[in-house]
Formats: sequence, structure tokens, C-alpha cells
Amino acid sequence: MSRVLVLNGPNLGRLGSREPDVYGATSYAGLVERCTALGKELGFEVEVKETNSEQQMIEWLHWAADEKTPVVINPGAFTHYSYGMRDAAAQRTAPLIEVHISNPYARETFRHNSVIAAVASGTIAGFGIGSYELALRALAEQLTTR
Amino acid sequence: MSRVLVLNGPNLGRLGSREPDVYGATSYAGLVERCTALGKELGFEVEVKETNSEQQMIEWLHWAADEKTPVVINPGAFTHYSYGMRDAAAQRTAPLIEVHISNPYARETFRHNSVIAAVASGTIAGFGIGSYELALRALAEQLTTR
Amino acid sequence: MSRVLVLNGPNLGRLGSREPDVYGATSYAGLVERCTALGKELGFEVEVKETNSEQQMIEWLHWAADEKTPVVINPGAFTHYSYGMRDAAAQRTAPLIEVHISNPYARETFRHNSVIAAVASGTIAGFGIGSYELALRALAEQLTTR
Amino acid sequence: MSRVLVLNGPNLGRLGSREPDVYGATSYAGLVERCTALGKELGFEVEVKETNSEQQMIEWLHWAADEKTPVVINPGAFTHYSYGMRDAAAQRTAPLIEVHISNPYARETFRHNSVIAAVASGTIAGFGIGSYELALRALAEQLTTR
Amino acid sequence: MSRVLVLNGPNLGRLGSREPDVYGATSYAGLVERCTALGKELGFEVEVKETNSEQQMIEWLHWAADEKTPVVINPGAFTHYSYGMRDAAAQRTAPLIEVHISNPYARETFRHNSVIAAVASGTIAGFGIGSYELALRALAEQLTTR
Amino acid sequence: MSRVLVLNGPNLGRLGSREPDVYGATSYAGLVERCTALGKELGFEVEVKETNSEQQMIEWLHWAADEKTPVVINPGAFTHYSYGMRDAAAQRTAPLIEVHISNPYARETFRHNSVIAAVASGTIAGFGIGSYELALRALAEQLTTR
Amino acid sequence: MSRVLVLNGPNLGRLGSREPDVYGATSYAGLVERCTALGKELGFEVEVKETNSEQQMIEWLHWAADEKTPVVINPGAFTHYSYGMRDAAAQRTAPLIEVHISNPYARETFRHNSVIAAVASGTIAGFGIGSYELALRALAEQLTTR
Amino acid sequence: MSRVLVLNGPNLGRLGSREPDVYGATSYAGLVERCTALGKELGFEVEVKETNSEQQMIEWLHWAADEKTPVVINPGAFTHYSYGMRDAAAQRTAPLIEVHISNPYARETFRHNSVIAAVASGTIAGFGIGSYELALRALAEQLTTR
Amino acid sequence: MSRVLVLNGPNLGRLGSREPDVYGATSYAGLVERCTALGKELGFEVEVKETNSEQQMIEWLHWAADEKTPVVINPGAFTHYSYGMRDAAAQRTAPLIEVHISNPYARETFRHNSVIAAVASGTIAGFGIGSYELALRALAEQLTTR
Amino acid sequence: MSRVLVLNGPNLGRLGSREPDVYGATSYAGLVERCTALGKELGFEVEVKETNSEQQMIEWLHWAADEKTPVVINPGAFTHYSYGMRDAAAQRTAPLIEVHISNPYARETFRHNSVIAAVASGTIAGFGIGSYELALRALAEQLTTR
Amino acid sequence: MSRVLVLNGPNLGRLGSREPDVYGATSYAGLVERCTALGKELGFEVEVKETNSEQQMIEWLHWAADEKTPVVINPGAFTHYSYGMRDAAAQRTAPLIEVHISNPYARETFRHNSVIAAVASGTIAGFGIGSYELALRALAEQLTTR
Amino acid sequence: MSRVLVLNGPNLGRLGSREPDVYGATSYAGLVERCTALGKELGFEVEVKETNSEQQMIEWLHWAADEKTPVVINPGAFTHYSYGMRDAAAQRTAPLIEVHISNPYARETFRHNSVIAAVASGTIAGFGIGSYELALRALAEQLTTR
Repeated sequence: MSRVLVLNGPNLGRLGSREPDVYGATSYAGLVERCTALGKELGFEVEVKETNSEQQMIEWLHWAADEKTPVVINPGAFTHYSYGMRDAAAQRTAPLIEVHISNPYARETFRHNSVIAAVASGTIAGFGIGSYELALRALAEQLTTR
Repeated sequence: MSRVLVLNGPNLGRLGSREPDVYGATSYAGLVERCTALGKELGFEVEVKETNSEQQMIEWLHWAADEKTPVVINPGAFTHYSYGMRDAAAQRTAPLIEVHISNPYARETFRHNSVIAAVASGTIAGFGIGSYELALRALAEQLTTR
Repeated sequence: MSRVLVLNGPNLGRLGSREPDVYGATSYAGLVERCTALGKELGFEVEVKETNSEQQMIEWLHWAADEKTPVVINPGAFTHYSYGMRDAAAQRTAPLIEVHISNPYARETFRHNSVIAAVASGTIAGFGIGSYELALRALAEQLTTR
Repeated sequence: MSRVLVLNGPNLGRLGSREPDVYGATSYAGLVERCTALGKELGFEVEVKETNSEQQMIEWLHWAADEKTPVVINPGAFTHYSYGMRDAAAQRTAPLIEVHISNPYARETFRHNSVIAAVASGTIAGFGIGSYELALRALAEQLTTR
Repeated sequence: MSRVLVLNGPNLGRLGSREPDVYGATSYAGLVERCTALGKELGFEVEVKETNSEQQMIEWLHWAADEKTPVVINPGAFTHYSYGMRDAAAQRTAPLIEVHISNPYARETFRHNSVIAAVASGTIAGFGIGSYELALRALAEQLTTR
Repeated sequence: MSRVLVLNGPNLGRLGSREPDVYGATSYAGLVERCTALGKELGFEVEVKETNSEQQMIEWLHWAADEKTPVVINPGAFTHYSYGMRDAAAQRTAPLIEVHISNPYARETFRHNSVIAAVASGTIAGFGIGSYELALRALAEQLTTR
Repeated sequence: MSRVLVLNGPNLGRLGSREPDVYGATSYAGLVERCTALGKELGFEVEVKETNSEQQMIEWLHWAADEKTPVVINPGAFTHYSYGMRDAAAQRTAPLIEVHISNPYARETFRHNSVIAAVASGTIAGFGIGSYELALRALAEQLTTR
Repeated sequence: MSRVLVLNGPNLGRLGSREPDVYGATSYAGLVERCTALGKELGFEVEVKETNSEQQMIEWLHWAADEKTPVVINPGAFTHYSYGMRDAAAQRTAPLIEVHISNPYARETFRHNSVIAAVASGTIAGFGIGSYELALRALAEQLTTR
Repeated sequence: MSRVLVLNGPNLGRLGSREPDVYGATSYAGLVERCTALGKELGFEVEVKETNSEQQMIEWLHWAADEKTPVVINPGAFTHYSYGMRDAAAQRTAPLIEVHISNPYARETFRHNSVIAAVASGTIAGFGIGSYELALRALAEQLTTR
Repeated sequence: MSRVLVLNGPNLGRLGSREPDVYGATSYAGLVERCTALGKELGFEVEVKETNSEQQMIEWLHWAADEKTPVVINPGAFTHYSYGMRDAAAQRTAPLIEVHISNPYARETFRHNSVIAAVASGTIAGFGIGSYELALRALAEQLTTR
Repeated sequence: MSRVLVLNGPNLGRLGSREPDVYGATSYAGLVERCTALGKELGFEVEVKETNSEQQMIEWLHWAADEKTPVVINPGAFTHYSYGMRDAAAQRTAPLIEVHISNPYARETFRHNSVIAAVASGTIAGFGIGSYELALRALAEQLTTR
Repeated sequence: MSRVLVLNGPNLGRLGSREPDVYGATSYAGLVERCTALGKELGFEVEVKETNSEQQMIEWLHWAADEKTPVVINPGAFTHYSYGMRDAAAQRTAPLIEVHISNPYARETFRHNSVIAAVASGTIAGFGIGSYELALRALAEQLTTR
């Protein structure tokens, strides 16, 4: 059974304890559960991980590149400055989909745009936890039609 | 059966005759077919429309606002300057999802960002025709969980 | 009896169905009525028109230029990008007054300024439907003192 | 009889001795006369004042805030930098209307926009002395319809 | 006999009634005549069209792309913002030459540059109606040397 | 007993009558009282002054420079443009501490940064009236450890 | 006894070995000592920590948010780019005070402003180690007056 | 004997007590003396004035405009923001020469350029007190050759 | 027989040895030949010159101004910075046409626009050597119709 | 008798044949004569030179640096881009005064500021040929008071 | 035998598995070998390290500062945002040379410049692995000539 | 024996007589000597040239392109604006290395970046005369490994 990595950047492990009007009421545990469940349904082994460390994120991306594992990534605040994560993401050959729970373009006008968008296969933003589920479905579609 | 409007902006009606390396090989007819078929599967009556006219686009959005019909919209080149379309899109109460076949952030650095993103429920970009299908699935999910 | 054209840009025909906290509770029909009534009082035949089409707007402006008819114009979203409308407005010799229901400088900081201001006789913004009435009075004054 | 304050910023007291092609031929005395006369007609006691002092302008605005007196203000050159005047203007609860004799957006492209526009009830620009008269009429209308 | 399309954007149909010091004294009818006459001389069937509608412009460009017809285009005010027209222009395989009656770089410093220049075969600006004639000669040259 | 000057810029004399959600409920009289009381406790003669006049502010700063008196200054709106005040502040040799009741960086994104920060000994912002008290304590500390 | 966390970002652990003209002669050990001593005086248990790791900083901020512990933070170089730290800081409900030993606005004009200022309760900059002491006093004041 | 006004903006009255490496050792009294003496030599009655008040400066400029008296002006910090002074300076018909003791372009890169330069007859900067003397000589020359 | 100067800026003398995909295969000798031949046909004595020296370019332009000789100029890299050449070009009274072999707006986005365009009669870009030929034809037309 | 070099940049040798409304009616010969005559009066041997060559200008500046000869320089169009001339000017130890016939700040807003101002002793602009004469007087003053 | 630290930032440990057209074919192992070998030849003990962690990089730089060990550093993606690394690099007294395999200025125009360049002794970019070897030779030279 | 050209831009021939704290004490003669000596050691015939003329620099680069001679170039002030030199440098097929004695990025923040970097094989900056020697070694390495 093929594997998919779902990677979450800084502060995302605290989902559910923070700004529910922006991020919805689902907890991080709920996110893990929903992704794993949908993965099973789609025939993937989904591994959901989170880290506050740029280094860790980079190394998971290296591992994914070596294993040619597809990636769903919510870079969190790294979206706006981690060129290190971006360079790591650029190396993979399997699909890599950037997701956001809310729409970063609408929400925080003072921030820079995503530095990862240019190297991602696609972007899905604004659907809450549903952004992850859509990304998993998109992967299922892409892997099937290859 | 509830209805969904899939709106396409300028030049998108010519899909299949233009820059296949950027937009993929699917023709516009194929896009209509795939959206309609998936709609049927999801229990929607999907109406796919395309126009090169900003006025037409605005008026479809007015209609959708009046009918409270959900919208999937690929604004094409209007993405970058049609504040008229944007104001029309801001009026609806049903969900409105912005889709792009390729990733506008990656592809054309000299252009401005999307003027519609700030009023959309969510954005899906970079999955070819699949962007529309993901948007329809997202609508199905949102309408179910309401 | 001399004529005055009151032109409204995209989405303004829906006045009353949209964002009442920004645009007030008056409907478009009410706007037409109030302008016509005040026109009568001031001795003008006031014709109020609205369109979502840039082309239409341009052609009304051509007509006004040919007829030397004064114009009150609320360009709506065209305020921010329609250089085509602007060039048409620059051709007239009768007065042309730009009006806005709310103050575009205060309300939407991310937008560009008005591209039409530089070719208008004057600007009136922030008085709700009253902006139109003040413009009609200003025209009456200008036409009298000529 | 309710009172209205008409405040004029730096150099406006010299109206009539300066750049008649930009500001028209009316002298400052003429401006005072026309405003007072129209005020009488509209049922206001209009007090027209002018100062070259930012401090004086701020203090008149404090007085107006305390007395809940409506204000018509032509900030002159202060338009472009006096945040002190702006903060004072932000405190009032009665209407405050910004007027300009000519259109500052059209005339002087090298200057910054108005720092007061964002706290004004409305803006009227480009009608010569008529800008003041329109503002007084707008006040009459607003005070009536309250 | 091969065909050439000469397309004119907003307000150009009014040539002769507008700002003669900028655009010269030739009327639009004169422009049509001169282009047709020169076309005959060069062995082209020249069709001169004008529109104030972006949609119309886009659809003529689609037609030209389908027919592989060379295009001479004066985008008028669309020069500065119509990405929709630009995307349509990018699709053609026959030559497309951008013309301007006066020099937009010299004349209007506050405007953006041409959004179409990057997809045109060449640009000719500043020769009055002569810009069109030079463009037709350039087409004749290119079609001959192919 | 050594003296300290506490200087307040435009509109600060109206503390208590203005935007209590931004500036807190303390009145200007309360500010004077709290500063004087704390000064007594710390062994200073604290003189609290306020002005809406840039000239006055500059001249108090000259006086402080001549007397080598430490200064606590809340420049109010002058923060953003008074280079005249800034040059006067640059002349003193005793400490000068810039205070703000709320955080100007967070509150008003459209304004320029402080022009005085570069010549101040230190900055304290965001503690309401407490910003002044912290400044007085900082002075006490600095004067002691000299 | 209530606790306060004093967090120091990259390179601050080396205080005393680096640029004494900018940062003063106090060593990091001295900083710890002074903060602890003052904490004791004010009735706090002060814990001073330092890290060169963004991840560590984020996780201390999570801990403080969970424990509702007030924070004094000198973000060091993270001031200018760590949106990850910023998002973590935005979650807490207890006060969080940003301190700087010197004034970042005056010292390094080429750098961006603080990304943390917008989510801090207040900012204190330019008093050397005294900045920390003022922050602790401010906390004492705030906690008392609650 | 014709008169010349020498006007000095904020802080210039303190010449000699401030930053001698930038402004030279001459005191304000010395400046007055040297200007008066040279004026006598050139046949002018030179009146040297200084003010920290923008209002005062504006009113001296009005007086000079009414009297058609030539002006030598060192705007000091007003150079960078006083559009009020600038508008007053624009009214005069006699020559007005802007002087600076040091070179504002070289010295303070973070400041804006002079807002008065565009309305001055000429600019002389960088010669210490000598800048004033050169300006007086220039006036003598201009008045002679008229 | 009237004369025309065809001036070429830096590196253009090496045409044919450089980047044939950008500049086409024609050599500089070929350019001279084609211009001379067409000149003969049009009744001009065409003198084609090239230089890598800004001084030389300026002096040829002076000569052309003195002789009232029309100029076709390809400024090469000088297009982007030689204000000296620009000032020289501004002096002539005969027509001066700027030509480029390829389209500088499309090709090199990081460069500044042409500093000469504002003083040229017209611009022709993107037709290879044909740009020169169109310019000569344009001159013939202009000289005839005078 | 000490020497002074008066250096003129591109196009200045043509003074008198160019734009008399901007540069006055004096010819270059007249400029030479007036500078030489005034030099004699002041006890200098004044050598007036002009060149259209940046290299020549740089080498005259080297010579002046070696000879410790004071320089009066009108850089003409080089003002805006010749960093080579600027670096050469920075080497000299004798005074170097930048002059302009008209005021470059007022006249041409689209140009960059002077790159030489930062290394000049002083700047004199806007007095026609008189700018040179004031510069020579300033030199006389400086050399005397050394 | 003196030591040299060769530090590599994020993703550089994967050299050889990534974008060979940009970074060349040498693997990271090859880089280590070549640096060590050349170090031996030059009389250095070269230690080559790589990390994806900003914290690690900062701490190696602290160690180098304490040991006064020269550093060759390829900051990788940290080049563009790690002010933390920059501040650490600023502390050392031994030489620190910044190297890049390819030229970051040429390759990626959308990125910011190097934040480390301003504190480095020198920069070497564009020579592949040779950049490191040149840096080691430069160190040898510097250490010899001290 | 293969040849290498070492080209020096404006003012570099004066090395040793200028700003020794920036450029070191070595004279230009010393530079020539060191380059020639090292060339001999590496088996090159090194020709060191300097010019203050952009034209000369361009023509040496043409010669190098024709002869396929490697180039070491210190563009001096031309670094910042000579697109003419840049276009000439872009033509060569042999390596071209840009060198700077000091680090232009660190030293002069107000200048633009290098316009030549994008077309150079590599850049070496900050090693004094050593920058040239490293460049020669890099050439030796590149020529060997070809």
C-alpha cells in the first residue's frame, strides 16, 4: 500500500486550542484521524506529522524525496520565509500539495506570499480541515491517472 | 436537485486549442463533460458556462447571489484586474470557490495577485481540470455538513 | 429643458440588495426616483442609467460628449481600472462629476485611487444617495453661472 | 439656531490674491460672505475662520467636538501631513466635511493623498467656492434627516 | 488574396473628434480608407474594425488565431490593463503588430506600460496614422520573406 | 531636588474624553497626578505639560537642553512628521524617553514610523498611563547609576 | 508565588562577549541574576531562558500559553523574521512584553521592523539590561491592578 | 534702500550651541551680524529673523509677497514636510533663495528631499554661513540685472 | 539629395557575431547595405555609423541638430542610461526615430525603459533589420508630407 | 596665481543653441568669458573646459586631485548616472562645487537625484550663468578663510 | 596545525542528488574530500560540516568565534533570511568567507540578497565546488600575510 | 602560452593614491606586478589594462570575445550602470570573472547591485588585490579541468 506524508508546520500541533474563529473547532487529533481515515478509504497509508522545527521539516522532505513519497504540506508560518523548506520541497519528484486551513491571501495582508507555492504541484486553501481531505483526493486522482 | 454554477472567464472556452504544456490536453468540451458527470455523481445539477465578457460574468454572479447557488469560478485573466467581478462575487451567500488550472503564483511572476481570492470561500490551483473536480467535491462536503 | 445623464457602473443596479451598512438602505429604484425628482425641481430632465458593461459606459460617455450633456457618474468598481472609460470621459466639454456613495479612500485601502478623478470637473464622496443630489445641485449652479 | 464651523487652513485667507487660474477670482471676503448668506438661507449660523496655525486648527476642532458642532474644513496644505489635525478631527461626533476648491488628486501629483479623508464624513472637491456651498447643503440635508 | 485584420480598441472609433493635437486630424473613416488602400497596394485584403468592448476584441483575436490571419492592433486604453486581450493575443501563430498613434511612453507617465508588448511580434508608435501603414508594410515584408 | 519634564503632544490634553478603548479611561488630570506622585516618590520634581503647538514643543525641548533636564515625551501625532521637534530633541544631553500609551506600530499601519525614535534614549509603548511611570522609573535608575 | 518567563532569542546567551558598545558590559549571567533578584523583590518566580532555536522558542511560548504565564521576551534576531514565533506568541492570554537592549529602530536601518510588536502587550527598548527590569515592573503593575 | 528678508526655520536660532561639526562654530548672533554687514555693503537693508513656528514662517512669507521683498530662506527641518510654508513661498513674485548650512542631500539619507526647492528661484547648500552670503550676492546680481 | 543619419550604439557593430536567436543572422555589413540600398530607393543619402562611445554618439547628434538631418537611432545598451545622449537627441528639430532589432520591453524585464523614447518622434521595435527599413520609410513619408 | 578648473559635462558646450527658456540666452563663449573675467577679479587663473566624454571628465578630476586645484563642476546629464565621475570627484582634497544653470530638482521630476552631491563641498543651482559666478566667489571666500 | 571550519547550510548535505545542472555533479562526499585534501596541502585541518538547523549553524559560529577559527560558510537558503546566523557570524574575529556554488544574484532574481555578505570578509560565488577551494586558498593567503 | 586579460575600470589606475582604508595600500603598479607574476607561475601570459573609458572597456571585451581569451574584470564604478559593458561581456565564450577589491554589497548601500554579475562566470569580492589572484587561480583550475 503506497504511503503519503502529511506534514504540518509550526503551531499546527495546537489546532483546537487556538483562534477557533479562524481555524475551526477541530483539534489536531481530529485532523490526524480524518486524514488517516480518508487515506484508508483511498488506499493510502497516511502518516500525519507536525513539527515546530524547520530542520525537522526539511529532513522529512528529504526522506520523502528519497522515497518518492507524495506529500501534503501545511507549512504554517514557514509559508512566508522558509526558503530552506522550499529548497527541500523542490527536490522531490512525487507530487507535493500545499494546503492551508484558511486563505492566507485574504487573512493577513501584511505578510508576504507563499515561498513554497512556486515549487508545489498545487495549492488548496480555505476549506478548514477539508483542505487536507481535498489534497488526499487530488493525490489519489493523480496517482491513478499516471 | 440543487444546482451549481461553474463559470469560466476569458479564453477558457478555447481550452485544448491553446498552450497544452500549460493547460493540459483536455478540451473545453471535455471540461464540461467531466464537471457534469461528477456533478451527477455528487447529486448536483452542474451548469458550466464560459464568457469573454466581464459584464456577463458579473450578471451570472448576480443571478447566483439571487438564487443562493454555489459557484465554482475560474476567472482566467479577470483574476488580475476585474474589481467589478470581485464586487459581484462578494455579494453571494452560498459558497464560491476560485479555481485555476495551473498555479498563477508560480507561472507568471509579473502579474498581480488574484483580486478575487479575498472574497472566495477557498482556492484550488494547479491540478488541471482536476481543480474543478476538487472544487465540486468541496462543495458537496460543505453542503452536506451544513 | 436641458438634460443630465446619471451613469452607474457595475453592481450599482443592485443597490439595496447589498451591504446595507456600507451603501445605505436605499434601493436602486429609490436612487432613480430621488434623482429624477430633484432634477425636475432644478429644471433638468435627468436620465439615470446603470450598466455592468464597460463598453456600454464608454458609449454613453461618447453620446454625452456628442450632445454636450452634463454627466454625473458613479463608476463603481471601474473607478480603479477602466482607462477606457476614463479616455471616453476626457472627451466631453460639458461638466462631468464623479460621485461615490461611500468614501473609496477611507473604505478600501488596498485598491488604487480613482483613474477618473483627473478628468472629472469635481468629486463628491461619502454622502450616500445624497452624493448624487449634491452633484445635481452643483450642475445646476454651474449651468446657471455660465 | 444651530451653528456650523467653516475652517480654512494655511494660505486660504489670501484667497483672491493668489493663482486665480487655480483658485478662481473670489476673494476670501467673498467666501465668508457666500457661506454666511447660504447658512442664513439654510437656517445655520455659519462661522467662517481661517488660520495658518496647526495648533489653532486643532483647538477649533476640539471646541467643535465639545460643542458637537458640524464642521466644514478646507485643510489647505495641512491635507497632506497634519496627523495632529487628523487626530483632532477624529474625535468629533457631529458631521465633518472635507472640501477643496480644486481637485488635489488631479492637480498636484507629487503630493501625498489627504490624511484627513479617512476620518471625514464626506469629501467635496473641484467646485471652487461652490465646494463650500455644497458642503453646507449636505449638512442641512444630514441634519434634517437625522 | 491573404487577409489582414486591423483592430482598434476603445475610443479609437471617434478618431478625428478628439484631441487633435495628440491624435492628428485624420478621422476614423480616413484611417479605414488609408489602411484599405495600402492593403490593396500590398496585395492584402485589409479589414479594419473597432470596438469599445474587451469581449469583442478577444473574440476577434480568437478568430484571427483560428484563421492564422495576421493582426495589426491598436489596443487603445486596453494597452494598460486588459490581460484578457493579452492572453487572446498570445494564442495566434501569425504575426501580430502593436501600433500606437502617439507614443504612450512619452505621453502619459502615470500609466502602466503595455501589457500586450510582451506577446506582440513588434511595436510601432508615434507616427500618427502612419503607424498603421508601417505595420502593414512590415507584415508585407514578413509574409514575403517567410 | 532634580527636575523632570513630561511633555505631551497634540490632542493628549484631551485624554479621557477620547477613544477610551484605545487610550484607557484615565483623564489628563489623572495622568498629571500619577506622574507627579510617582516623581515625588522617586525624588523628582515632575512637571507635566501638554501642547498642540509644534513651536511650543520645540521651545520646551530647547529649555530642557539648556537646563540639562531629563525629558519624558509622548509626541502624539507629531511622532510621524515633526522633524522640527526631532532636531530639537537631538540637542539635549540628559536622557529623553519616548512614550506611547498604545503601540503605534500595531495600531495604525498606514502611518510612518516614529521620527523621534532614532534620537531618544529609549522607547516605552503599550502600557497606557503606565508607560509614563515606567519611563520615570527608568530615569530614576539611569540617574542613580551614573 | 506566580511565575514569569524571561525568554531570550539567538545570540543573547553570549551577552558580555559581544559588541559591548552596543549591548553594554553586563554578561548573560548578570542578566539572569538581575532578573531573578528583581523578580524576588516583586514577588515573582522568574525563570530566565535562552535559546538559539526557533523551535525551542515556539515551544516555550506554547507552554506559557497553556500555563497562562506572563512572558518577557527579547526575540533577538528573530524579531525580524520569525512568523512562527509570532504565531505562538499570539496564542497566550497572559501579558507578553517585548524588550530590546538597544533600540532596533535606531540601530539597524536596513532591517525590517519587529514582526512580534503587533501581538505584544507592550514594547520597551533602549535601556540595556534595564529594559528587562522595566518589563518585570510593568508586569507587577499589571498583575496587581487586574 | 531696498529690503531683503532672511528667514530661519526651527532650531536655527540656537546656532552655535548645537552640533558644531555639522553647522560650524558661528553663533546665530554671528549669522545676523554677517548678513546685515554684507547687506549694507550690497546696498540692502537685511532683516534676519528666526522662528520655530510654521505659522510665523508662513506669515512672513505672506508679508514678503505683499511687499514684493526678496527672501533668503533656510527652512531648517521644515524643508522636509511643511507644504504650508511651500504654498506661501509659491506666492511671491520677488526672488526667493533656499539656503542650507550643510548639504541636506549628503547628510541625512533617511529624510525626504526639500519640498520648497520646486518653488525657489535657486538653491545654495553646503557653505556654512557662507551660503547666506552667496544668496545675498545672488540677489544683488539679480536685482541689478533686472 | 537629402541625407539621413543611421546611428548605432554599443555592440551593434558586432551584429552577426552575437546571439543570433535574439538579433537574427544579418551581419552589420548587411545592415549597412540594406539601409543604403533602401535609402537610394527612397531618394536619401543614408550614412550608417556605429560607435561604442557615448561621446561620439552625442557629437553625431549635435552634428545632426546643426545640419537639421533626420536620424534613425538604435541606442543599444545606451537606451537604458545615457541621459547625455538623450539631452543631445532632444535638441534636434528634424525627425529622430528610435529603433530596436528586438523588443526591449519583452526581452529584458530587469532593465529600465528607454530614456530616449520621450524625446523621439517615434519608436519601432521587434522587426530585426526590418526595424531600420520601416524607420527609413517613415522618414520618407514624413518628409514628403511636410 | 592659484588656478581653478571649471568643468562642464555633456551638451553644455552648446549653450546658447539649446532650449533658451531653460538655460538662458548666454552662449558657451559668454560663459567662458564671464568666468575668466570674474576669476581675474578674484585673483584666480580660471580654466573653463567642456567635454561630452565621461573619460575626459574623470581624467580632469584626477589631474585636479593631483594638483590640489579647486573645481567648479556642472556635470550636465552625468549628474544622474556617472558613478565613475563621482568616484573621481571623491578623491580630491581641494574644494569641489557642483553647479547647475537651472534647478534639476524642480525641472525634471522623472530623473534621479545628483550622484555627485554627496561628495561635493557645496551645491549652487538655479541662477543661470550666475551659478558659476557664485561658485567662484565661494571658492575665493573659502581659500581666503583657510 | 591550525583549523578551518567549512560550514554548509540547509540541503547542501544532499549535494549530488539534486539539480545537477545548477550545482554540478560532485556529491557532498566529494566536497568533503576535496576540501580536506586541499586543506592538508595548505597546512590546515579542515573540518567540513553540514546542517539543516539554523540553531546548529549559530552554535558552530559561536564555537568558531570562541576558538578564533577561520570559517568558510555556504549558508544555502539561510543566505536570504537568517539574521540569527548573521548576528552570530558578526561576532568572530578570524576571517569568515561566504561561498556559493552558483551565483545567487544571477540565478534567482525573486530572492533577497545575502544578509550575511555585509559581515563576511569576502564572497566567492559561481565556481561550483571550486568556490570552496578558492576560499581555502584565500584563507591560506590571509593567514600567511598577517 | 595562453593569454588572460585583466581589465580595470574607472579610477582603478589610481590605486594606492586613494582611500587606503578601503582599497589597501598596494599601488596600481603593484597590482600589475602581482598579477603578472602569478600568471607566470600558473602558465598564463597575463595582460593587465586599465581605462576610464567605457568605450575602451567594451572594445577590449570584444577583442577577448574574438580571441576567446579569458577575462578577469574589475568594473569599478561601471559595475553599477554600464549596460554597454555588460552586453559586451555577455558575448564571450571563455570564462569571465568579476572581481572587487572590497565588498560592494557591504560598502555602499545606496548603490545598485552589479549589472555584470548576471553574465559573469563567477564573482570574487573583498580580498583586496588577493581578489585578482584568486580569480587567476580559478581560471587556471577551469582551464585545466576542461
